[in-house]
Amino acid sequence: MSEDRVHVLLHASELLTGEGVRRKDGRRPEEADLGRIEDGAMAYSVKTVPYEDFTTGKKGMKVVADKVLWTGKSDALPSEYANSPIFDLDGKNAVVPGLVDCHNHLVFAGDRAGEFAARCGGATYAEIAAAGGGIQTTVRATREASDEELFKLGRARLEEAHRFGIRTIEAKSGYGLNEKTELKLLRVVKRLQEATPEMTIVPTFLGAHDFPKEISREAYLAEVIEKQLPAVAKEKLAEACDVFIDEGFYTLAEGRKILEAAKALGLRTKVHADELANTESAALAAELGALSADHLLKISDAGIRALAASETTAVLLPGTAFYLKAPHAPARKLLDAGARVAISTDFNPGTSTTLNLPAVLTIAALYLGLSRAEIFASATYNAARALGLHDRKGSLEVGKDADFFVAPFRKFEELYYRFAW
Amino acid sequence: MSEDRVHVLLHASELLTGEGVRRKDGRRPEEADLGRIEDGAMAYSVKTVPYEDFTTGKKGMKVVADKVLWTGKSDALPSEYANSPIFDLDGKNAVVPGLVDCHNHLVFAGDRAGEFAARCGGATYAEIAAAGGGIQTTVRATREASDEELFKLGRARLEEAHRFGIRTIEAKSGYGLNEKTELKLLRVVKRLQEATPEMTIVPTFLGAHDFPKEISREAYLAEVIEKQLPAVAKEKLAEACDVFIDEGFYTLAEGRKILEAAKALGLRTKVHADELANTESAALAAELGALSADHLLKISDAGIRALAASETTAVLLPGTAFYLKAPHAPARKLLDAGARVAISTDFNPGTSTTLNLPAVLTIAALYLGLSRAEIFASATYNAARALGLHDRKGSLEVGKDADFFVAPFRKFEELYYRFAW
Repeated sequence: MSEDRVHVLLHASELLTGEGVRRKDGRRPEEADLGRIEDGAMAYSVKTVPYEDFTTGKKGMKVVADKVLWTGKSDALPSEYANSPIFDLDGKNAVVPGLVDCHNHLVFAGDRAGEFAARCGGATYAEIAAAGGGIQTTVRATREASDEELFKLGRARLEEAHRFGIRTIEAKSGYGLNEKTELKLLRVVKRLQEATPEMTIVPTFLGAHDFPKEISREAYLAEVIEKQLPAVAKEKLAEACDVFIDEGFYTLAEGRKILEAAKALGLRTKVHADELANTESAALAAELGALSADHLLKISDAGIRALAASETTAVLLPGTAFYLKAPHAPARKLLDAGARVAISTDFNPGTSTTLNLPAVLTIAALYLGLSRAEIFASATYNAARALGLHDRKGSLEVGKDADFFVAPFRKFEELYYRFAW
Repeated sequence: MSEDRVHVLLHASELLTGEGVRRKDGRRPEEADLGRIEDGAMAYSVKTVPYEDFTTGKKGMKVVADKVLWTGKSDALPSEYANSPIFDLDGKNAVVPGLVDCHNHLVFAGDRAGEFAARCGGATYAEIAAAGGGIQTTVRATREASDEELFKLGRARLEEAHRFGIRTIEAKSGYGLNEKTELKLLRVVKRLQEATPEMTIVPTFLGAHDFPKEISREAYLAEVIEKQLPAVAKEKLAEACDVFIDEGFYTLAEGRKILEAAKALGLRTKVHADELANTESAALAAELGALSADHLLKISDAGIRALAASETTAVLLPGTAFYLKAPHAPARKLLDAGARVAISTDFNPGTSTTLNLPAVLTIAALYLGLSRAEIFASATYNAARALGLHDRKGSLEVGKDADFFVAPFRKFEELYYRFAW
């Protein structure tokens, strides 16, 4: 490997490899698992990759980090890397694995700022619905938006996410609720990935996010299973299929039907589970071998046991509970039972309007009672697990992707001690 | 006035002058008070002022906004301003009065990130104190810090505050707890103002923030009244004097003594009131004609009535309640009683580590139930009132300071609908 194909980070105030978290597969993370190296250094390969901006037509090549070659103390940097380009952090920055935002509704149009302001100011849901508010506002705006508009919105959001340390991000569809728009959204996600080689964008099909108003429940369920899912699988537009199983949304039986159809097509599965009411959908996720069960505000003890005994990651979204003023998920019960816990933003226009994963970690630390090691694992390895990318992402170890975040602070915990920076 | 001494903002998606809020003196703000101008424009004078960076020794001149000359619809821009430099916002940004952060412990050294992480992870206060944590950590670090270090920390914080739309910011002393360090802090604040003419920094003396460990309670009280206050007044280092009157801190009688001494020296007064316990310190603030009574988590109905009947502004700090996981202040009761309510960050290293005033407004909207007009008033005119600067700041009207914020959003409410941007 020629010298300029290797870059070196030197004198990180601390470098957290997360090696121990990965070794224990993300369960019961402890301080010693962080793989903390004071005055740390890392050597990594870089690669030159093409990119294309869909709206401007601009094409080019970008140099991006590739694989971790070595980590250790700065004064132990192997001589073979000594002549590579060096980024000297001068002890001012912690370096951590690139954050992974594993539950994100990245692509939609419109906003619900006026509705939010009205709700906070005392307007009732009935008044808001009467004024045409709620999720249907977003569905309407998203259906009307052009590919270009959705791409531009997505690009701006990716830039913001990158600023907060996120290097891998999920992008769910789900604001289309018809075949045309659901596919449009996932194709936009594909174009966002082509334009953004410095991040990994993981598409998830969420056609079963809600029911559309214009056709019957049964007709839409059939459309999802017989048309949308096969089209998504054929065009390879998603890694996984997600369903919102909850009171007022999809029943457990409907969810099972969709998820089993997805599995038969070779897709992984995820579940919006036990958020508004307990439907034992977390247990269904575990039974189906889903990548993750997400939300879990109302999970039962049986659900907790099912997740702890499974490979399904419990994805908690405390920014959403904060936004909804709902009681938080039983994080400590999940952790103590041995479940693998990830934290994510749930970025969406109705119930969590933030891409600031570190700010969500502050909420998690305060209101879920997570330790430093648990916070670390929840936004790195465990979140990578929830996307099925733990072999490549979520820890800084030789051979894995060199996805890293040079934090604007000296210590990892300042990322969430400093609130909403 | 020569043409280049006037600048013009054109095509703001909306320009909120806050004229009605000012007219009603900040009480019971309603939607109509916002002075909302769609496709708004503003002409303002600019001035060239000197600045000096204390640490680099760099001196120079900066062009900064001076006074509002005109506001209105873009298509009604008077012809006399047509040849001035124009910043065309192309309908993409709302323009609002520069935000005012009226309760801020801007200058201190050290951080308590490790302590925060330990507390969230389940460590008890006794364990943290045994490890040398708590406010004394900050006092120790601040006493040890050089003027240069404190200046650099302050500058970085001002830059961050500016990014969040803050144009006027309070800077309390209070982490010195001895004459030498309290004066050092206020002199650093003075130097920060000299380096930062684009913002207004309002110094507040808070020698009575806590008691130092090394001398008796009585001795420190005497030092504050007989030495610190006269020195602060003589050197004109503060606009106001603040006291932390609360259980475990200053008694009501001690607070009264200090505040009356401050008034006798010509200083305005402020009170950290009724935060941890009800001490009827809000009523004392009203009685003394204080600029503000701040925190108010435990304010009594009598305290609410006293504030509503006074000119003292109720400053609420919901980021701190969020951080402390404490029940929020009775904002609606205060508003409905007719008190003037401001919201601020309370930026400090122990109980509110954020300069993101818009994120604190999100907490206020959700958890205090504030309407759009109430949120607007709380961070503009009413906060200026709490600093005694309402004749110059807090609304965009002809003759007032042209302190404005070009928001990165089209609508004012997106500033707090989008959480922790």
